[in-house]
Amino acid sequence: MRIYDIIYKKRNLQTLSKKEIDFVVFNYNNGEIADYQMSAFLMAVFFAGMTDEETFYLTDAMANSGDIMNLHFPDTPTADKHSTGGVGDGTSLIVAPVAASSGVCVPMMSGRGLGHTGGTLDKLESIPGFRVNADKKEFLGFLEYANMALIGQTREIAPVDKKMYALRDATATVESIPLICASIMSKKIAEGAKTLILDVKTGNGAFMKSYKDAKELAQKMINIGTFFKRNISAVITDMDTPLGNCAGNAIEIKQAVEILKGNLKNDLSELSLELAAMMIFNSQKAPDMKTAAAIAEKQISSGAALEKFRQVIKMQGGNPAVIDDPDGILPKAGNSLKIKASRSGYISYMRTREIGIAAVMTGAGRNKKEDPVDHAAGILIHKKTGDYVKEGEVISELLYNSSANIDEAAFIMSDSCIISDEQTKRPALIKETLS
Amino acid sequence: MRIYDIIYKKRNLQTLSKKEIDFVVFNYNNGEIADYQMSAFLMAVFFAGMTDEETFYLTDAMANSGDIMNLHFPDTPTADKHSTGGVGDGTSLIVAPVAASSGVCVPMMSGRGLGHTGGTLDKLESIPGFRVNADKKEFLGFLEYANMALIGQTREIAPVDKKMYALRDATATVESIPLICASIMSKKIAEGAKTLILDVKTGNGAFMKSYKDAKELAQKMINIGTFFKRNISAVITDMDTPLGNCAGNAIEIKQAVEILKGNLKNDLSELSLELAAMMIFNSQKAPDMKTAAAIAEKQISSGAALEKFRQVIKMQGGNPAVIDDPDGILPKAGNSLKIKASRSGYISYMRTREIGIAAVMTGAGRNKKEDPVDHAAGILIHKKTGDYVKEGEVISELLYNSSANIDEAAFIMSDSCIISDEQTKRPALIKETLS
Repeated sequence: MRIYDIIYKKRNLQTLSKKEIDFVVFNYNNGEIADYQMSAFLMAVFFAGMTDEETFYLTDAMANSGDIMNLHFPDTPTADKHSTGGVGDGTSLIVAPVAASSGVCVPMMSGRGLGHTGGTLDKLESIPGFRVNADKKEFLGFLEYANMALIGQTREIAPVDKKMYALRDATATVESIPLICASIMSKKIAEGAKTLILDVKTGNGAFMKSYKDAKELAQKMINIGTFFKRNISAVITDMDTPLGNCAGNAIEIKQAVEILKGNLKNDLSELSLELAAMMIFNSQKAPDMKTAAAIAEKQISSGAALEKFRQVIKMQGGNPAVIDDPDGILPKAGNSLKIKASRSGYISYMRTREIGIAAVMTGAGRNKKEDPVDHAAGILIHKKTGDYVKEGEVISELLYNSSANIDEAAFIMSDSCIISDEQTKRPALIKETLS
Repeated sequence: MRIYDIIYKKRNLQTLSKKEIDFVVFNYNNGEIADYQMSAFLMAVFFAGMTDEETFYLTDAMANSGDIMNLHFPDTPTADKHSTGGVGDGTSLIVAPVAASSGVCVPMMSGRGLGHTGGTLDKLESIPGFRVNADKKEFLGFLEYANMALIGQTREIAPVDKKMYALRDATATVESIPLICASIMSKKIAEGAKTLILDVKTGNGAFMKSYKDAKELAQKMINIGTFFKRNISAVITDMDTPLGNCAGNAIEIKQAVEILKGNLKNDLSELSLELAAMMIFNSQKAPDMKTAAAIAEKQISSGAALEKFRQVIKMQGGNPAVIDDPDGILPKAGNSLKIKASRSGYISYMRTREIGIAAVMTGAGRNKKEDPVDHAAGILIHKKTGDYVKEGEVISELLYNSSANIDEAAFIMSDSCIISDEQTKRPALIKETLS
């Protein structure tokens, strides 16, 4: 078997066998296949696509490049959630404690900020002392102790994905549905949760701009999950507007604490409770979604989810006082700049991706992988799609320490909303549920 | 400008600007663009194609990666010929001396055997002492002295093409019309001949199997040549049958000498004289093609072309006695194996590519670039498409020194012809002329 012939076959729109896909992944992982051959292969896949079977085999080969966790806790189902990424998407910080406090084990491995989207690990690290790195043994210990972990991928999880992703990122082969599916699902399969809820974003702030692509991605991931005997469902949700009222790190932690305390209700809390309810229902902890939703709601009202979050912060080395006094414990930016409405009217459109980019420019995200993140920086979003604003009213606020890119960020933000005379409604948050 | 954005743009089927194409070629040549990015770019071009303008810019950038020869000989037009390659294609060995002896300067830079096709340089090196390597100064000296040179590319000619070709060869991106065009034409433009005749092969022994692809390739190369103010024409010729009566090195030299002596007339001599006549006519050395054909014919009958070949062999260090006594001077294979017809009838089909592969297996060609070539080895082809054969009659003959792959070569050759009851005609040799 030669990599040349496999590239040639895919390039000619032919279907690859399990053996051929195993050959590619195994030999790329061990360095036998050169980067320049792999990148040609990935570009051929970008154009030629992959059948569901090919995508299963790719996912399987990538998952098997490392360990596949065999999580087994008597009487405790395991469930995880994955979002394809958006602006202000802090759902993990709420979903995980809500589901865990209701008796579902949540082995959550998250990522860092990518492009214009934030990352759960960066957000968690704004809590002083919080440690997101753990090895497999420690990870299993966390799950035993707290029913939950909020860590980065251990190095045993689908290691070839890291190598493939770096190559795709340098060769414009990221936006391929089979490659995205295999990258996400290989990690989720290796993580070992039996129930998996996918939050597939669509809209101008999502990686999948079109509804059609988002649905195709969701359906393909469901097919993969089903093939691997996972209990899997997906929701397609709106990312034409940032989620919640901020985009940053410390400010998103504070927002999550307020939601867990029951002090704040917004689109972020609504979506988080829906996702948690799906995890509870799909794990058979409730007979129907209505009951599951009530269970999720109760984790907030009883304070159980908040206490779970406190326990996990303490377990992972963070300062649990952040729960009681977020303003006192979390880092704060030295400067702020208010963005005001240029006219009166209804916000009819938000350039969500651009808002994410402006948040990166405040220091909250990275331009290059090795850049540090300013945990205090970010954007407060006071007004969103459908809201009425008066000329001169503050619609958003940049928080920053370094002013290096603030002029550009402010310029982007001052042009981030379209304000119209007609009253407009925000589009539905949850567009479709698939399973 | 970033290579990522250029790959992304081409991948999204957009048209690249001259600046962007220059950026890719210049920075790949100097090592700033990594192989893994270039191979992704080349695969994107394979799928997305290139407009004529993009192909002009690519050709231009590749030609400008080295020197562009400025050939200028008062009263002597310059003309070259290029074939896309086939089995038994020894036309260069005849075309060049015929055109040169008629007063056209022929600055011919040729290649080595590639895949199942032979290479002019390998054939020439079967003449003891013949030296195909020359630098720019020596090349210009050859042209001054003999009106002709038969050498490999000097290192000043489109050096980036070598690097790009090696990458394409390892990543299954060879068969792309814009990339093939730019590779061929960048070298031909850099070589400096004002008239260019393209011999584009089509059929089961050609790189372009379909007539449509061959015509597209020919037309695209004509467009490029015209853009660069070259006087360019193309013929689309048959490669469903090997050309001439042999495929190898020394045996093709002997065949060329016999044709130049006027002792042998076959499809190879017919095509060679047509190509030479086109060079003569397009160089305005004749008022019409009929006169040009008569001039070409006269170079044979007068012995002028043969003497030109003798002069060039001597000039490039080869033993000119090969002209008078090819059997005595050229290397001879120690063994031969005759392939006989399995039944009586007419040869209706020849597996030309497989015949080329069998010739490589005798030792006449290379499996890997660094393999040596056995100049004595090859295949004599006694019967071709349209010929009547009797059961048991010899249809071909393998000549070899190493028997390593002879069983497989013999197996291929014994199955290389389809013999039918109906009388069949060989398809037209010259299918279409384009300019």
